[in-house]
Amino acid sequence: MTEASRIHCSRLRERLMPAEEAAALIPSGANVGMSGFTGAGYPKAVPQALAAHIRERRERGENYRISVWTGASTAPELDGALAEVDGIEMRLPYQSDPVCRQKINEGRMSYIDIHLSHVAQHAWSGFFGELDIAVIEVAGITEDGKLIPSSSIGNNKTWIDQADKVILEVNHGQSAGLEGMHDVYYGTALPPRRKPIEMTQPDDRIGEKYLLCPPEKIIAVVETNAPDRCSRFSEPDETSNAIARHLLAFFEMEVEKKRLPENLLPLQSGVGNIANAVLAGLNEGPFSNLTAYTEVLQDGMMAMLRSGKLRMASATALSLSPEANRELTDNIDFYRERILLRTQEISNHPEVIRRLGIIAMNGMIEADIYGNVNSTHLMGSRIMNGIGGSGDFARNGYLSVFMTPSTAKGGAISTIVPMVSHVDHTEHDVQIVVTEQGLADLRGLAPRQRALSIIENCAHPDFRPRLRDYFDRACASGRGMHTPHLLCEALSWHQRFEETGQM
Amino acid sequence: MTEASRIHCSRLRERLMPAEEAAALIPSGANVGMSGFTGAGYPKAVPQALAAHIRERRERGENYRISVWTGASTAPELDGALAEVDGIEMRLPYQSDPVCRQKINEGRMSYIDIHLSHVAQHAWSGFFGELDIAVIEVAGITEDGKLIPSSSIGNNKTWIDQADKVILEVNHGQSAGLEGMHDVYYGTALPPRRKPIEMTQPDDRIGEKYLLCPPEKIIAVVETNAPDRCSRFSEPDETSNAIARHLLAFFEMEVEKKRLPENLLPLQSGVGNIANAVLAGLNEGPFSNLTAYTEVLQDGMMAMLRSGKLRMASATALSLSPEANRELTDNIDFYRERILLRTQEISNHPEVIRRLGIIAMNGMIEADIYGNVNSTHLMGSRIMNGIGGSGDFARNGYLSVFMTPSTAKGGAISTIVPMVSHVDHTEHDVQIVVTEQGLADLRGLAPRQRALSIIENCAHPDFRPRLRDYFDRACASGRGMHTPHLLCEALSWHQRFEETGQM
Repeated sequence: MTEASRIHCSRLRERLMPAEEAAALIPSGANVGMSGFTGAGYPKAVPQALAAHIRERRERGENYRISVWTGASTAPELDGALAEVDGIEMRLPYQSDPVCRQKINEGRMSYIDIHLSHVAQHAWSGFFGELDIAVIEVAGITEDGKLIPSSSIGNNKTWIDQADKVILEVNHGQSAGLEGMHDVYYGTALPPRRKPIEMTQPDDRIGEKYLLCPPEKIIAVVETNAPDRCSRFSEPDETSNAIARHLLAFFEMEVEKKRLPENLLPLQSGVGNIANAVLAGLNEGPFSNLTAYTEVLQDGMMAMLRSGKLRMASATALSLSPEANRELTDNIDFYRERILLRTQEISNHPEVIRRLGIIAMNGMIEADIYGNVNSTHLMGSRIMNGIGGSGDFARNGYLSVFMTPSTAKGGAISTIVPMVSHVDHTEHDVQIVVTEQGLADLRGLAPRQRALSIIENCAHPDFRPRLRDYFDRACASGRGMHTPHLLCEALSWHQRFEETGQM
Repeated sequence: MTEASRIHCSRLRERLMPAEEAAALIPSGANVGMSGFTGAGYPKAVPQALAAHIRERRERGENYRISVWTGASTAPELDGALAEVDGIEMRLPYQSDPVCRQKINEGRMSYIDIHLSHVAQHAWSGFFGELDIAVIEVAGITEDGKLIPSSSIGNNKTWIDQADKVILEVNHGQSAGLEGMHDVYYGTALPPRRKPIEMTQPDDRIGEKYLLCPPEKIIAVVETNAPDRCSRFSEPDETSNAIARHLLAFFEMEVEKKRLPENLLPLQSGVGNIANAVLAGLNEGPFSNLTAYTEVLQDGMMAMLRSGKLRMASATALSLSPEANRELTDNIDFYRERILLRTQEISNHPEVIRRLGIIAMNGMIEADIYGNVNSTHLMGSRIMNGIGGSGDFARNGYLSVFMTPSTAKGGAISTIVPMVSHVDHTEHDVQIVVTEQGLADLRGLAPRQRALSIIENCAHPDFRPRLRDYFDRACASGRGMHTPHLLCEALSWHQRFEETGQM
């Protein structure tokens, strides 16, 4: 396939221009909806050209900033480049870029950290203001102007629908074989005109293979040829493997007690080394004919599809290492039958998540002894990444699992604390907590029972006696026995860490 | 209608017995599912007889306790009577009884405070253990043994389905005209066998008019004749009226900006004086053709149905004052066309709440400057009532509103605090905060913008300068500008209240 053949629509070929020219079409103050989800399918050229443009204008003394709405996290070419030049006024709904993070924590960039399932409907409703421009990476354009989605869909449908103008990046570096792997649902609406989403299993196709955009909206088409910048995972370490073992043993027990079917229920998995270790464990475990209904398809799920343990996976993004991406491209026909990429309003939709009965497995920063979970903040004030879709899955799924090593920073931090410094998932939404020490099953337990289970099963032995001591003294304080706390000490572990570098 | 005529099924008439005999069929250690939702439709006789039985056995030195699962709160005849004799080992999912509350806070009763939408599926899945007996109030029994539900449905369908044995209370004090007002959905299932719930507006009937129970399960039928014990609301005071005015002005603005339809969206309303003031405001306001999709239909909604402002209401319970209940009974044909009572798994179902686009309006105990909400705990440790359905509606609804007077205890407590002492609704789930001071619209705001909006619009002027001061010093602390906090002071307002009686 020649480069030119990626743009089969002659009308749109006429709008071809260099990234610099396209970037100049984005005015300061604009709300810009960009593609990109977990480092996949983000525009590679326009944001960098825009960053250069902003830097230049800034050097001439002009203020020049935009607001950036995406699917989820992107990559240095987008978030990093724009944050570096202080070009982002407001960012939503999720980021994981080190430069972004620094700017947010320095107070130089606003960040709205919201549930991924809320983004599209809030944007439709105008809660964030008007969307001016969409910058969307696609894998190609068909003769009749339909857009072949790239390695993620995220909010692309919504951005294209809502924006006044659209800039396309046609990335020749994406596999042309992605065509046909997508399922873009055009049935959403604002209330009171919503209809049931007729999906009863993760395999169900309910939409189109293409993104649709009125050609008159498209003000520029830019050609690129660059891979997604997805990080390679490290091999699972002993801690991750221990977490995976505890979780697999739990699943086996649930199946034995007939509380889960033999092929479990559709799996949602966060991204990262622990998630990959769990997937590796499942790939070697006793369960087969599994399905996934998740946001991100990462290396671990590719391996499970290859082995046949995983029958199929529904996601909104492919976040693959270069090796896994090569595997995908080389065997695209095999994977196209087993992978469905959807819009994130569907991958994270409360209705679908509840109906399918998802097993939600997410990482966290810390949990407290009562099972409240902090997924976003370091020591209560500094953002790490964001809540992403973890709340969508934990709140509406069938089982909500949160995982972390029991310590961080070489043992200076206990990830099990008296009271979390920020709450993203309340005690009402957290059922299973797992560390390398063990698993706490909180279902059917009242708060003090939860505390004992978490301390004894999940806390690191170095911190366990002090947690027990806190709990015992809180119980003895006479302040109330439903959720015993000592207000003057509840956050003292975090405070001590900030003062001494050690909890 | 004679008393006997409420039990038209001869086979079940044979199981008639006094409450004392029926209560003796409940063994110590049993998990008992009882009817009852917000003081409506709870069994009136068996729990009291059981309490007497427990007291007697206790005096003989025997331990005798049961676990009580309900729809939501009940009344002194159930929660109060059983708690009084320390007869409850574990209670779920919601209570508001003063004796219960005291026992829980003294550590003499376990309490699992969970989302109402989770209860049925968790019980089905066996997460709480086996359900031994159901004790269900009904308004009558048809000739073919179908059960006419009472003034609430709650979890009755689930308790009847899941329990090994069923005790019925046939309450002649409930209006016989309730027959036909219910919609009991029998289409729920455990995953992976779930289907879409085919409801697209609050009026849609999707189920049966009766509860179904295999007659061989029914081990006792008890006749009662007693009204629900629902408290009368006080007339709205100036504070409640001010909250209502702010909220109505907000709705008018949203309609003007075309972010809400002219007849708004289906309303969910918590219970209490503020909720009733809001409903009274809506009844005199500019909106018509309204609908409600809520848990509890209280006096305010009755008045709106009568005036025609409210076209219809879907709920799971009628929590009416004696006057409103008389109005209902006297005009039952009018109301039967405008009220649908459903199981609480449907009234609180994530799928339906998301699809219909509910406007969720709930009370709270306190909010912090970043918009995290505490609905359940006094000073971090003592339970008040429970989360009930507020999380179901706030999380999956279209707009989530939380309301409270800006002070409590005669001004000793600020309900806007630096950091809430317990989180039930995270910053991600809270969009509108209202006090009598004003309304903070948090949509599209980053944390520091939220803080300014909440402090300036919602905090009481007596506390506003100190909140500003906390926020300013937190911003200046260098600890991170995403969600600035001072860990050593974050909970100091609560601590001060406990030490001095004044925040």
